[in-house]
Amino acid sequence: MSTEKLALTTNSAARKPASAGGASTALAADLTRALGPRKVLSNLSERLNYRYDAIQFGATPLAVVLPESTEDVVAAVRAARAAGVPIVGRGAASGLSGGAAPLEPGLVISFTRMTRLSIHPERREATAQAGVVTLAVTEAARPHGLIYPPDPASFRTSTIGGNLAENAGGPMCFKYGVSGDYVRALEFVDEGGEVHRLTRDVFDLAGLLIGSEGTLGLITEATLRLIPPPRFTRTLMAHFPEVGACAEAVSRAIAAGAVPSKLEFMDRACTNAVEDYLHLGLPRDAEAVLLVDTDGEDLDTVQDELRLVEEACVASGGTVRRAATDEEGALLWRARRSVSPALGRIRPQRMNEDIVVPRSALPDVVREIRALGDASPFPVVQFGHIGDGNLHPNILFDPRREDAHAVHDLAHRIALVAIRHGGVLSGEHGIGSMKRDFMRDAVDPETLAALRGVKRALDPSGALNPGKILPAEGVDG
Amino acid sequence: MSTEKLALTTNSAARKPASAGGASTALAADLTRALGPRKVLSNLSERLNYRYDAIQFGATPLAVVLPESTEDVVAAVRAARAAGVPIVGRGAASGLSGGAAPLEPGLVISFTRMTRLSIHPERREATAQAGVVTLAVTEAARPHGLIYPPDPASFRTSTIGGNLAENAGGPMCFKYGVSGDYVRALEFVDEGGEVHRLTRDVFDLAGLLIGSEGTLGLITEATLRLIPPPRFTRTLMAHFPEVGACAEAVSRAIAAGAVPSKLEFMDRACTNAVEDYLHLGLPRDAEAVLLVDTDGEDLDTVQDELRLVEEACVASGGTVRRAATDEEGALLWRARRSVSPALGRIRPQRMNEDIVVPRSALPDVVREIRALGDASPFPVVQFGHIGDGNLHPNILFDPRREDAHAVHDLAHRIALVAIRHGGVLSGEHGIGSMKRDFMRDAVDPETLAALRGVKRALDPSGALNPGKILPAEGVDG
Repeated sequence: MSTEKLALTTNSAARKPASAGGASTALAADLTRALGPRKVLSNLSERLNYRYDAIQFGATPLAVVLPESTEDVVAAVRAARAAGVPIVGRGAASGLSGGAAPLEPGLVISFTRMTRLSIHPERREATAQAGVVTLAVTEAARPHGLIYPPDPASFRTSTIGGNLAENAGGPMCFKYGVSGDYVRALEFVDEGGEVHRLTRDVFDLAGLLIGSEGTLGLITEATLRLIPPPRFTRTLMAHFPEVGACAEAVSRAIAAGAVPSKLEFMDRACTNAVEDYLHLGLPRDAEAVLLVDTDGEDLDTVQDELRLVEEACVASGGTVRRAATDEEGALLWRARRSVSPALGRIRPQRMNEDIVVPRSALPDVVREIRALGDASPFPVVQFGHIGDGNLHPNILFDPRREDAHAVHDLAHRIALVAIRHGGVLSGEHGIGSMKRDFMRDAVDPETLAALRGVKRALDPSGALNPGKILPAEGVDG
Repeated sequence: MSTEKLALTTNSAARKPASAGGASTALAADLTRALGPRKVLSNLSERLNYRYDAIQFGATPLAVVLPESTEDVVAAVRAARAAGVPIVGRGAASGLSGGAAPLEPGLVISFTRMTRLSIHPERREATAQAGVVTLAVTEAARPHGLIYPPDPASFRTSTIGGNLAENAGGPMCFKYGVSGDYVRALEFVDEGGEVHRLTRDVFDLAGLLIGSEGTLGLITEATLRLIPPPRFTRTLMAHFPEVGACAEAVSRAIAAGAVPSKLEFMDRACTNAVEDYLHLGLPRDAEAVLLVDTDGEDLDTVQDELRLVEEACVASGGTVRRAATDEEGALLWRARRSVSPALGRIRPQRMNEDIVVPRSALPDVVREIRALGDASPFPVVQFGHIGDGNLHPNILFDPRREDAHAVHDLAHRIALVAIRHGGVLSGEHGIGSMKRDFMRDAVDPETLAALRGVKRALDPSGALNPGKILPAEGVDG
């Protein structure tokens, strides 16, 4: 656990040390009475581990509950509400927007013991408790000839509950849709400790819970749709002398009828970071590298689609390398999967944005963000899911030496580039605490008021994950 | 327009004659001042046409506005709010749950003049105002090699706004998803006359609006996802000596890996009604008729999938007829498409339910509903989208001779069969006014309270389509 992680928040409570032992002891005692000692963590040394997610450092919780059932969650919520403390749900804490990092001392409910999973091949469904690891769903479904497509980068550790709370995406999502598209039914516990079981029905409350980052309710179980895996996959890498040509190639391929299952982009700085790390022979001079998979039931169709992409890349001035074997395809994808460790060698910390812009605006957006990076003291790299226009500009910095406010300011200016080009703040990581201040730029005041109204309706006490998504009130008028 | 249509509602206002001229004249004058005379209907003879949808008869509106732009909708909403009267949105009024039929005299906003439509092939998107006819989207997209898949039965007349308000489905939805799955962005006008433009982002307010039947806001425009049409389609019809065998065949085919694009079921009464009408040579003795399409990019795969369905049908005791040509396929589908006119010959009116049950429960559900029909004075026929377990039990009756309360009571008992078997009330038609009383059986009181909270947050005055979806308060505790 890195104590250098940085709280990018305006909420001063988050930077306070864990509150005095009194409140913590009383809450832990209540919880232990309700749940037994095995499910409650009350020692400071244990609680300290539940302060952070993969990008943000928060407040030390007063107590941590490790529920094993929905009933345990109900008991924990009721105890926290009786004590008047906030409640933050937590999966694997691999999120990239601070969604699982508490901003105030309170109760953290960590779902990692709720791992019941069943596969129903005849209905092509899985029923998974919130703590089931994402990859485990596909592992259990595969013997039945089925998979669960959503593939966020952390899918080997992330949980279904966390994925749904953030409505996580991944490379497969261009063709197959995001986590929420696979939810047939949802169980959640509300702020009052009531259990709700919802299908995707009129007044799609389940859909509202998905992506609400634990601010409207705590997701305890989901019924997930499964699909048969594609029988064939083919891969190519292309590189381009400039970003516009890469974006043009993608638009051209899609217009020609290709629906690649993955369409990933890396800018020059990103490619060089990976090349420094792995020495794969990547084109260091290319302004844009594109990685593409096509997949499907029929090999001819899959190859035809890859050919459409190849022709579009060449027509746009790109240089194409087609993987001859599955092994070569896996090698090409290793470059993309190694972005995170490669960046970690440059600076210990990064601010990872998640903007989505119209694909036609991508060349301008990439150029403007690079200019912002060049004018700043921080390295800025860009990569992402170009098929959706989902870009991850990353600001690399060292919190021991560099100014957190300057990082936050640069992140804000990057967000404004996206908004100016008709984009949005989050494609798959959520808003969390990290980008909530930028919501005022992204959402008009009337819609913000409507979102606040919905929040008040479902969480009247405001106990659920306070300080996330919605900016502080009274400032945006 | 049929004046025999029946108001199946507990709201007495709906049965009152149009309210006295005074309120109507004042509202029409305000609206005419704001919008000009061409966009306002104030004569009683004109207003009478806006009382009903395809299944329900409501209250005569005080005034009708035919907006041509979002600004017109804003002006109309503000005038209605100033006058303190309710506001009901209306597309083609082809809905089957009373969603567009006003229950109290007020303002009806009819979107049929908001027909601006543009296709963006490079983004595979259409931007459609609320009044665009569903089929028009595919007609405009097809020259670009794209289609808009949602195909509710009325798609030749229904509008995008109405489809989204009800989150309409259709036969294609088993493979391709319902209307809401194709929405990338949404514009709506709220109860206060504010315009909101939403993408499918965190706090998926757009998703909440979809399927909320005009009770949370008025959808004015949507950005819709388009897909390339399947290159090949193949069709078969199978019939079975009992319903269980048909449901089993469907489960077997899906488990074997087939993903048919359409999977339609008709029970014996339904088949005989169609046969009486069209004399197509349908199997009158079969307890269940199944109609199946498979489609895709690759003819071999499409034929393989149809073969999997055929084998599953035979293994379950069915008799299969495979269409040799596209013309024969079209002929087979004519049977399913003629259900509505065929039923109209038996009784002038029908109560059309829209339950969804687990497919494994389908044989019991069909049997129990048939028993309820047999014990009642009304013919009951059943058909629907069996792939999703979406069944449409229809109670046929003559409102001039038969007791509306007995129809409502039978409809309620049919809804309870679905709920008892783990089903829900609406797959694609919405709840409207017709099934709102049954919501108390379908949704627990805590979730009903949450839905009411959301309604109050987005429509504090309660002006938007009052009396729909949510049952009257104070009864369910």
